[in-house]
Amino acid sequence: MKKHNFSAGPSILPKEVLEDASKSVLELDNIGLSLIEISHRSKEFISIMEEATARVLKITELQNKGYKAIFVQGGASLQFLMTAYNLLETKAAYINTGTWSVKAIKEAKLLGSVLEISSSQDKNYNYIPEMNNIPNDIDYLHITTNNTIFGTQYKSFPDCSPPLIADMSSDIFSRKIDFSKFDLFYAGAQKNMGPAGVTLVVIKESLLNKVSRKIPTMLNYSSYIKADSMLNTPPVFAVYTTLLNLRWIESQGGINKLEKRNLKKAELLYAEIDRNSFFNGFAEVKDRSHMNVTFTLNNENLSDDFNKIWENNNISGIKGHRSVGGYRASIYNALPIESINVLINCMQQFEKLNK
Amino acid sequence: MKKHNFSAGPSILPKEVLEDASKSVLELDNIGLSLIEISHRSKEFISIMEEATARVLKITELQNKGYKAIFVQGGASLQFLMTAYNLLETKAAYINTGTWSVKAIKEAKLLGSVLEISSSQDKNYNYIPEMNNIPNDIDYLHITTNNTIFGTQYKSFPDCSPPLIADMSSDIFSRKIDFSKFDLFYAGAQKNMGPAGVTLVVIKESLLNKVSRKIPTMLNYSSYIKADSMLNTPPVFAVYTTLLNLRWIESQGGINKLEKRNLKKAELLYAEIDRNSFFNGFAEVKDRSHMNVTFTLNNENLSDDFNKIWENNNISGIKGHRSVGGYRASIYNALPIESINVLINCMQQFEKLNK
Repeated sequence: MKKHNFSAGPSILPKEVLEDASKSVLELDNIGLSLIEISHRSKEFISIMEEATARVLKITELQNKGYKAIFVQGGASLQFLMTAYNLLETKAAYINTGTWSVKAIKEAKLLGSVLEISSSQDKNYNYIPEMNNIPNDIDYLHITTNNTIFGTQYKSFPDCSPPLIADMSSDIFSRKIDFSKFDLFYAGAQKNMGPAGVTLVVIKESLLNKVSRKIPTMLNYSSYIKADSMLNTPPVFAVYTTLLNLRWIESQGGINKLEKRNLKKAELLYAEIDRNSFFNGFAEVKDRSHMNVTFTLNNENLSDDFNKIWENNNISGIKGHRSVGGYRASIYNALPIESINVLINCMQQFEKLNK
Repeated sequence: MKKHNFSAGPSILPKEVLEDASKSVLELDNIGLSLIEISHRSKEFISIMEEATARVLKITELQNKGYKAIFVQGGASLQFLMTAYNLLETKAAYINTGTWSVKAIKEAKLLGSVLEISSSQDKNYNYIPEMNNIPNDIDYLHITTNNTIFGTQYKSFPDCSPPLIADMSSDIFSRKIDFSKFDLFYAGAQKNMGPAGVTLVVIKESLLNKVSRKIPTMLNYSSYIKADSMLNTPPVFAVYTTLLNLRWIESQGGINKLEKRNLKKAELLYAEIDRNSFFNGFAEVKDRSHMNVTFTLNNENLSDDFNKIWENNNISGIKGHRSVGGYRASIYNALPIESINVLINCMQQFEKLNK
């Protein structure tokens, strides 16, 4: 029996995507060979790569606007380094909204001066800080649009004249936003996009080739663009499964439709957290993430009781991150509303038992 | 009908491995969830990672000898950079045996002084050059054990007092060698080890933390060792499929047995190339690779005829790399001897037609 999968990442993917990905490992489109045993220079794989990058630009409405989409290995963590390597000449600004921002700041400091212009560390990152005081004399401003661990999410984005860079790993393709506000954004695939092992980077090309340092080949965005993401053998399974998921997104009516569904799911779950006196939401209401819902028990001593209930209801992956404790329900694109209802039902069972 | 897959990489994998990998994408070991939608911090995935690194050390007979095995993203190409970042303080020596050595040298030059102490460029890399004159005052010597594009392979390795580093991407686990001669070796998975998207690095730990530069987190071997290759989300599908293939290697009797099989396959094919007057071997006989067999037609005008024959016989992936031309039959571990016989048969049909 299939579980209700609330894992924060790697996380739930659509059933159709898993089925087609599984088939491709045995044989890709009746070509007599597995996806993972053909050359990445074959016409079959070149067409997969081309379709994947084209679909990204279509979904984000960035076609013919000077942007390129590339696929890179190494996760968002390698992007913490690559963004700085390619774009940080003297000084960059970062907004610190938690663990991933902190890691991004750490890598950037190896290559230049870093201003942490705003932070929510004072309250264990349970809110998105104000974004006043954005300096003009910086190479870029870096933000993390959704904070998987703490369950916070930007609802609007800073208007700033320097280039705006975003780590969108945990909420890309979950909501309609104006992607053209960003000069560069990146996302590890393993939430709303595909399996772990590939990272999407979308870049305004005019941003590149301006720093004075020599950039190693495998860290250089320009090399990836020039080679159509085939600088060396790409992670073929992760790229193909991402393509399947991009097709699925469009088949569902695109991100407009997914946003509506995600909003509904988030509203249902937050409503129960607010109604049910045994639970507390962790993030400030105005900054609540629609992807990662963090909450705690009012009485931690009752956690075994609650754990038993959701485990018996076939729920998986809702234990909170150690930095927050409690619970985290990750409710990405592919999570059906049925799973939300099962979780709410567990919370209500728990309430009745303990009243 | 399954093809005879001579692709140079990504390349043929054992049928059992493909079947189990395909199943895992639907559901891993009856846990009710797909391999690619569970947390990499789950007990299931931690056990996969532990088994994979342990099997590597067992197969290479490097247990309890101060070595660590880690899995990294980015392919061998990222290792060209990482080896230098972690180990090149002032000066390193490289032996240039073709395209991949040239790329490794290019990245190392960004970080220190590079001596190209030997090269086979003068004859389009059709041989392995002598290895005299290895200086003692270098941080390491770097070699490429098998040259996929040119079809050459080291039959013995330099005895040298500085640390010895090897790119083993295209012949790891294909033959019994004394791995303890190497202080560090790495291999992109997509030949004999698994699918594209993961790279194995095996390191003598005492080599590390000696350079004076600050190493970015995602380029630092020590960080990967400390985090058991889970510095960030690893490429779970590629790691798991690699584990399946490591199990397969042991189920076949280990690399001793595979080496015997590979030798037989290589001998059969080279014997036909030498016997059949329509074909020429590209590499010098003493340095012929047992993994990538490069050969050309004596009369290029007949290539359409030969191409028709192997295409009709369900052969795939034997077109040569543009740097060499002609043909390249990659005959990795998983390629059955039956495929070799089919190819030889095609060469003999072609001979009869044109005599």
